Amino acid sequence: MVEALTGERKQERVSYPSLVDVDALKALLDGSEGGKRERIRALLNQPEFALRDFGSTEEHRAQVLAWCEALAKEEVGAGLFPVEFGGTGDLAGFLASFEMLAYHSISLTIKFGVQYGLWGGSVYQLGTERHHRKYLPDTVSLKLAGCFAMTEIGHGSNVRGIETEAVYDVETGEFVIDSPSYSAGKIYIGNAARDGKVATVFAQLEIGEERKGVHAFVVPIRDEEGDVLPGVRIEDCGEKVGLNGVDNGMIWFDGVRVPRENLLNRFADVDEEGKWTSPIESESARFFTMLGTLVGGRMSIAGCGVNAAKTGLTIAMRYALERRQFGRAGEEEMLLLDYPTHQRRLIGGLASLYGLHFAVQELVASHAANGGKPTREVETHAAALKAYATWQSHALLQTCREACGGEGYLSKNRLGELKADVDIFTTFEGDNTVLMQLVAKGLLGELKQKFKKGEMSLIKVLQKRWASGLRQGLGRRVDFTDVQQLQVLMREREELQLLALGRRMMRSRKAGADGMDSLLDNQLDMVRVAEAHAERVVLDAFCRGLADATGENREVLGKLALVFAIERVLKDGGWFGARGVTRKGFLDARRELGILYREIRVVAGELVDAFGVPESCLAGTIGESSFRIRR
Amino acid sequence: MVEALTGERKQERVSYPSLVDVDALKALLDGSEGGKRERIRALLNQPEFALRDFGSTEEHRAQVLAWCEALAKEEVGAGLFPVEFGGTGDLAGFLASFEMLAYHSISLTIKFGVQYGLWGGSVYQLGTERHHRKYLPDTVSLKLAGCFAMTEIGHGSNVRGIETEAVYDVETGEFVIDSPSYSAGKIYIGNAARDGKVATVFAQLEIGEERKGVHAFVVPIRDEEGDVLPGVRIEDCGEKVGLNGVDNGMIWFDGVRVPRENLLNRFADVDEEGKWTSPIESESARFFTMLGTLVGGRMSIAGCGVNAAKTGLTIAMRYALERRQFGRAGEEEMLLLDYPTHQRRLIGGLASLYGLHFAVQELVASHAANGGKPTREVETHAAALKAYATWQSHALLQTCREACGGEGYLSKNRLGELKADVDIFTTFEGDNTVLMQLVAKGLLGELKQKFKKGEMSLIKVLQKRWASGLRQGLGRRVDFTDVQQLQVLMREREELQLLALGRRMMRSRKAGADGMDSLLDNQLDMVRVAEAHAERVVLDAFCRGLADATGENREVLGKLALVFAIERVLKDGGWFGARGVTRKGFLDARRELGILYREIRVVAGELVDAFGVPESCLAGTIGESSFRIRR
Repeated sequence: MVEALTGERKQERVSYPSLVDVDALKALLDGSEGGKRERIRALLNQPEFALRDFGSTEEHRAQVLAWCEALAKEEVGAGLFPVEFGGTGDLAGFLASFEMLAYHSISLTIKFGVQYGLWGGSVYQLGTERHHRKYLPDTVSLKLAGCFAMTEIGHGSNVRGIETEAVYDVETGEFVIDSPSYSAGKIYIGNAARDGKVATVFAQLEIGEERKGVHAFVVPIRDEEGDVLPGVRIEDCGEKVGLNGVDNGMIWFDGVRVPRENLLNRFADVDEEGKWTSPIESESARFFTMLGTLVGGRMSIAGCGVNAAKTGLTIAMRYALERRQFGRAGEEEMLLLDYPTHQRRLIGGLASLYGLHFAVQELVASHAANGGKPTREVETHAAALKAYATWQSHALLQTCREACGGEGYLSKNRLGELKADVDIFTTFEGDNTVLMQLVAKGLLGELKQKFKKGEMSLIKVLQKRWASGLRQGLGRRVDFTDVQQLQVLMREREELQLLALGRRMMRSRKAGADGMDSLLDNQLDMVRVAEAHAERVVLDAFCRGLADATGENREVLGKLALVFAIERVLKDGGWFGARGVTRKGFLDARRELGILYREIRVVAGELVDAFGVPESCLAGTIGESSFRIRR
Repeated sequence: MVEALTGERKQERVSYPSLVDVDALKALLDGSEGGKRERIRALLNQPEFALRDFGSTEEHRAQVLAWCEALAKEEVGAGLFPVEFGGTGDLAGFLASFEMLAYHSISLTIKFGVQYGLWGGSVYQLGTERHHRKYLPDTVSLKLAGCFAMTEIGHGSNVRGIETEAVYDVETGEFVIDSPSYSAGKIYIGNAARDGKVATVFAQLEIGEERKGVHAFVVPIRDEEGDVLPGVRIEDCGEKVGLNGVDNGMIWFDGVRVPRENLLNRFADVDEEGKWTSPIESESARFFTMLGTLVGGRMSIAGCGVNAAKTGLTIAMRYALERRQFGRAGEEEMLLLDYPTHQRRLIGGLASLYGLHFAVQELVASHAANGGKPTREVETHAAALKAYATWQSHALLQTCREACGGEGYLSKNRLGELKADVDIFTTFEGDNTVLMQLVAKGLLGELKQKFKKGEMSLIKVLQKRWASGLRQGLGRRVDFTDVQQLQVLMREREELQLLALGRRMMRSRKAGADGMDSLLDNQLDMVRVAEAHAERVVLDAFCRGLADATGENREVLGKLALVFAIERVLKDGGWFGARGVTRKGFLDARRELGILYREIRVVAGELVDAFGVPESCLAGTIGESSFRIRR
């Protein structure tokens, strides 16, 4: 495919860019929260945050709690909450700080996220002032460690199907919390097995035998001494593939009584007499409004995945710039990064991480600017990025492991730990496959709105294009050195796939299929559309993000964006080929990619340095800058 | 893409096959070594092989050694060696038994493989009768635990570049083994950190200041009591991502003397006066002949990867046939396996494992039938299957983990352990990327032979086809229900890509590029050709393998082979599309795939049962057949 590289290599365009300005690039990546990020870097470089081996899970958990306490002392989690409830009211700073922890240890990141984002966040988002006043100050200081008890053994993604019951007892003005079966047990609950004193418990509210749907309640689970309270049964989830610094547990309730005030009553309330009221009429709308408050967690997980992968890629890249293997007879062996296969693995990964970084940061910034209020659009966006970013990050960590050979397999080099920890990101906070369906549903909903709003001209144009096999659209000769053309390709793919999906789903409903049949018939395509959407979103954000760079930095970022886009076009070659990208076009694409890899290779070391992974997070690994000398 | 599924679903061909004959299918998979396989199943079901948690790495290592001793007592490793040296001379039985261990624990598998395949195998393959007589009987009984010390810290894939020296001292008739630097240390050596008494050490032979290339020597490293011998320094490799039941270590030598007889002298010898002789003149030919003896290990690793993935898929499939989530209002929730996204993940995986199984078994059988003698063709074949099978198996284990959600993340369900253990398969016994290049080189060599032999007619036909954009070849309308047509597609892709690669490499050499330039310019395409080769080989073996099945079994296997092939065509859609598969063709392919998933889904449980994973290897997991009741 890359035949032009041979023979004519002297004539090839290989303009090695001069060295990038690492500080400026780092500042660009850090964005408006640069100060907060630097503060976390400094904190993580403190001796008390030194990474180490743990003799036991208990020791690991104790250390992670101690790290959380150190962060609490520095009020790192306070930004999520307003000043009047012990916070500092700095959502953007909070989200940036949270993400930065993933450079260090995912157990710490998740333990922190459970306490502030899930427990504190649910009290703040689902509760009202009485809850904020009572719980948030001690949550910020970590005096009160809390859990978020939503998932049940029998009910993972299907939260609406949970079994736990909360029956209102009008006599005493209490809710009685019960787990009616084994499968009603709350599971994988962080902070449950060891440290949590209280939990936000999701349960089916029942008043006078009438079911009111899923509601959230504050339920104490341990006393001050840490003993489990009567009626509460807790089991440890035991060893996990990763994240063993987090004490995940299972919880069952047997007639546990909490006062009426413990209902987190922002979206529905019960008065003394048991009269239930809600500002949101539809049960379904209420449920999804409640879940919508979790959207901040999803985007944070996306960012954490990306940052963990940055640590991994920094390690693998530095190794590739130091490790030599094979070469010409009589000459020094060649650096790993001078092999095209290695360039494809690591520079392709670099392009993904830069793109994902800009996409996540853009989303987080708009979310923070909107005061953390979830909108339907932000939810779709967050679901897409969470799923896409965590899959990409996990796969890249595996690539990094393999790129470091046997060294990558040694625990001290961190790649295995990061990979095993990030693994769970693909199925928690919303299973990725389920999220991708949500994305498709969201996009279909937006499309429907466009129809309704009479934006039919766009639709018609697209339909015509689609019908004509896109001879006016994709069929033109693509210039693979022009990222704007690739943005158009990506957008067209998303729009066309979405239109086709919408048409099929409409047809199937018209033909009498119920919602489930229609979903089953189109599920694979829904996931496909969602992926096309995610890739388009990332590329667009990448291009907007790099527009703020200057000089050589901008040039290099432009090349990275091209790598990101070309790799995606090649990966979905069947689609693009069937719609007009020619064999010659693919040939051009491969050739361009090879050139880009070689150009970027020259500054690859600087490009990972700009991530600014704290050196403490690389200490003792093959990615540590002083590794070679020390060893 | 699958629009035909909508609306017309009633008219669709969905012929649910009647239940497959699991016993017959299992017998087919077990093949000629069925008796040996059943014996290992029975052994692994013994209480002493019960899988359990380990409080420490030391405990884990001790248990794995104890398991190896139990296998030694049963003479499981004896088949590799002739009767006169304490073996049973049953290569096919040995290879089948070895592979079966991977159902149970990869640490056990690898510890066993180090002892018999690597240590014993190197003595047998590289040594002569004096070594066989002296070492093999105690190797079989595990009285003498050995290591295989090839890889060095500074020299992984590039074995020819190792630094360890063996200088012949004519005065004493001894070789003096030295590690001249830190990076000359042997690394990742199994059995080195704890149990090994002796090692096959690869070193640069030096006689009278003349270098003779890499030779292998038997070097004692510990005494009877297990104390490290003078001049030998051993360090533990420490915790690894997985495989922690194997005691990998690093070894340095400082003037360690071994008698002249310790040279494994099958391919080169040194007489008392220091006169060096070899039946193979070229140093390069000798080196590759020596490495060729490792080919059995490579095919075993391929088989072990596939078997570990079978355990994982059995767990995930049984869970998917029991776990319900979401569904129609008022009805019981749906089984996970009834969702197309889940079918794609697990039934696609099933097709891969069946195909890989047949391919590996075919290779192993031909290798055993040939008395274990390596040929160039077998080497290429083994390299391709090792790389392709281990990548596929590892990726499938990740898919299984995700398909089981949070349950998949609990250690007790084994998916994390299997994945972490199999991970190393992608870079040891030959780094997969390096192996893929070897494959391409091997194929180019075969192509050259064809030219030389005057088989030009074939070449010309293919070249013409290639030039004409394959209008006569791929351009015809493909019937995606006909696996033979897909075999042709796969073969054409391999041949055309290989021809194009050969042409480019020839051109580049003619234009004055040296071998390294030519390699760098074409490295990505070499890996591509090798992958096309591997997929063709697997599909062909799949089709030959299923031809031995009868009745419904044959029908179902035919469907699985179609799934394997169609998924590969879609994955490389850019290539097939650019060469004639139309948009309508891809549409047909996707539609057919959806139908096949639904048809196979009905017997998916039986299809994993036919793997015959011992129930002890599933005990306590969500894949245990009695799990639901017990829980």
